[in-house]
Amino acid sequence: MSKVNICLDIGGTKILGAIFNQEGEIVFRLKKKTKAKDGAQNVEDTIISVVNEMVAAYGITLDDVDAISAGAPGVINQETGVVLFAPNLPWENYQIKRILEERFQTPFFIGNDVNLGTLGEWKHGVAKGLQQVVGFFIGTGMGGGLILDGKLYTGYDCKGAEFGHMILNPEGPLCNCGQRGCLEAFSSKIGMADYIRQQIRRGRKTMMEEAVAEGVFKSKQMKAAYDEKDAVMLEAIDRSCLYLAIAAGNMVNTFSPEMVVFGGGVMEALGDVFLEKILRKVDAYCLPSIRSTVRFERAELNDDSILYGALALIEEHKNREGEIK
Amino acid sequence: MSKVNICLDIGGTKILGAIFNQEGEIVFRLKKKTKAKDGAQNVEDTIISVVNEMVAAYGITLDDVDAISAGAPGVINQETGVVLFAPNLPWENYQIKRILEERFQTPFFIGNDVNLGTLGEWKHGVAKGLQQVVGFFIGTGMGGGLILDGKLYTGYDCKGAEFGHMILNPEGPLCNCGQRGCLEAFSSKIGMADYIRQQIRRGRKTMMEEAVAEGVFKSKQMKAAYDEKDAVMLEAIDRSCLYLAIAAGNMVNTFSPEMVVFGGGVMEALGDVFLEKILRKVDAYCLPSIRSTVRFERAELNDDSILYGALALIEEHKNREGEIK
Repeated sequence: MSKVNICLDIGGTKILGAIFNQEGEIVFRLKKKTKAKDGAQNVEDTIISVVNEMVAAYGITLDDVDAISAGAPGVINQETGVVLFAPNLPWENYQIKRILEERFQTPFFIGNDVNLGTLGEWKHGVAKGLQQVVGFFIGTGMGGGLILDGKLYTGYDCKGAEFGHMILNPEGPLCNCGQRGCLEAFSSKIGMADYIRQQIRRGRKTMMEEAVAEGVFKSKQMKAAYDEKDAVMLEAIDRSCLYLAIAAGNMVNTFSPEMVVFGGGVMEALGDVFLEKILRKVDAYCLPSIRSTVRFERAELNDDSILYGALALIEEHKNREGEIK
Repeated sequence: MSKVNICLDIGGTKILGAIFNQEGEIVFRLKKKTKAKDGAQNVEDTIISVVNEMVAAYGITLDDVDAISAGAPGVINQETGVVLFAPNLPWENYQIKRILEERFQTPFFIGNDVNLGTLGEWKHGVAKGLQQVVGFFIGTGMGGGLILDGKLYTGYDCKGAEFGHMILNPEGPLCNCGQRGCLEAFSSKIGMADYIRQQIRRGRKTMMEEAVAEGVFKSKQMKAAYDEKDAVMLEAIDRSCLYLAIAAGNMVNTFSPEMVVFGGGVMEALGDVFLEKILRKVDAYCLPSIRSTVRFERAELNDDSILYGALALIEEHKNREGEIK
């Protein structure tokens, strides 16, 4: 049997796992809930059980695994495999690469999830073969990724591409990062839920009332309210798209990219509706001579962008070092 | 006699010329006014006369010149030497490299002036040896430059790094680019002059009244009003620095650079005063984990940043191609 790769998408509430064959196809999947608040050991144990269960269920052993690779939210040094800081995970200066390589006796790679999502769309999705790509991933929060001059840009200490916290109005709504008027505070699910709660406090009716009572709604609840033409939900979506158009314009002027890719749970739920709302506004915010050579597209791999990006990370290391084993 | 290089800083109102010896020192300078509104031929003639007069005055011939290199405002393809578009110069799809190489029989290179200013500070100024550098040049307008992963970033078709038009408040003042609330509309001399005129219309007194009557003030007029503690001028400066701090924060979060460099005429006139005003605000707008590894500095080469950047462009071509002649 030829060797496989295992890729993981580690989130604050769940871990997605996939086995890729040598042709780069997903041949097995597994999803497990994580309880980030139970501490680092718990998340680590869940990662280990996802890998072990997938290997067992697919009828292979760890010897059949070429490498394991993961995307996770946070500031992660891709070179050293150290998680410097992860707002939604109980990790700080966490040497996950060293720990898991010892455990599995297999090469382990890790990168920021949205950086890897952009990498995935560039290597295996809608942005294949381009030199300059800007990725926006719209979910609970807002993440960014950059392909510049034909490679993933990570900046000093791999801390770059945090343009989800780009300030678009210094008098705008408060963000979890402590500042006002970040893109995330307008356009993420957190930002949309805040807006909806504000309107509820003003006495307005919305079918999202229960969904936002305890924090952030699920993407399918947003989709249902959109389908029912819920006025407050529609306003929140329009506002999200307006500020995404402004942010995309800023990034277009900064990078002169060939493509801007929009991915994440919100894009997946609302599909072309969401992209079209952004497109209707974006021309106003791009310098025309730059706008003329950029395309705006939906992520093609949807929920699998990060898994494919984790696969691309393995491929990059292989290209750099020759065969791993 | 060993060969020299000639570098030019081509602006909307003047051309600065310098002869560099093989040690990279400026050994001769010349400045001439241009009349951009008289058309492309006039600017071209002025370039030619600057080069010819410098060569004659320094007692050499064009055979003693290794290469000529220039920075100019606008969208310029550095590879082909074509000026695609230049807002303050009468050039559009202008094949300046081909024209001037025929004329001088010497290699000619050209790039965007602020890109080259950043390149100059990186090769010969305050940012030597770093991998990631963001440059802001604050003059009549507002320009940006990027050194990423150890080289000048220009983006698709060399149209990138236009973050002078980053939108920081969609309800802000109107910019020449047609949008509202760009960095340029807040922080450049154009933006400051607009603010001062607005205050004059509100009946406020300022010693800048005459200076802004016909458009943009001179940097030394700004400095004089600052020294006299002119309240309206001080407000315009504070507002400029506040929005520069926000823009710098956005760029820090996007790039995780090692250094942000501030240059241009405004910085040169107000020196550390201006930088300190930016620094007093900037921490609030950077994600702390990224802020901790970035330095904010004044351009070191002042008015010569672009000339040194033009020199660096020659050096890069030499490195790529071996000796030019």
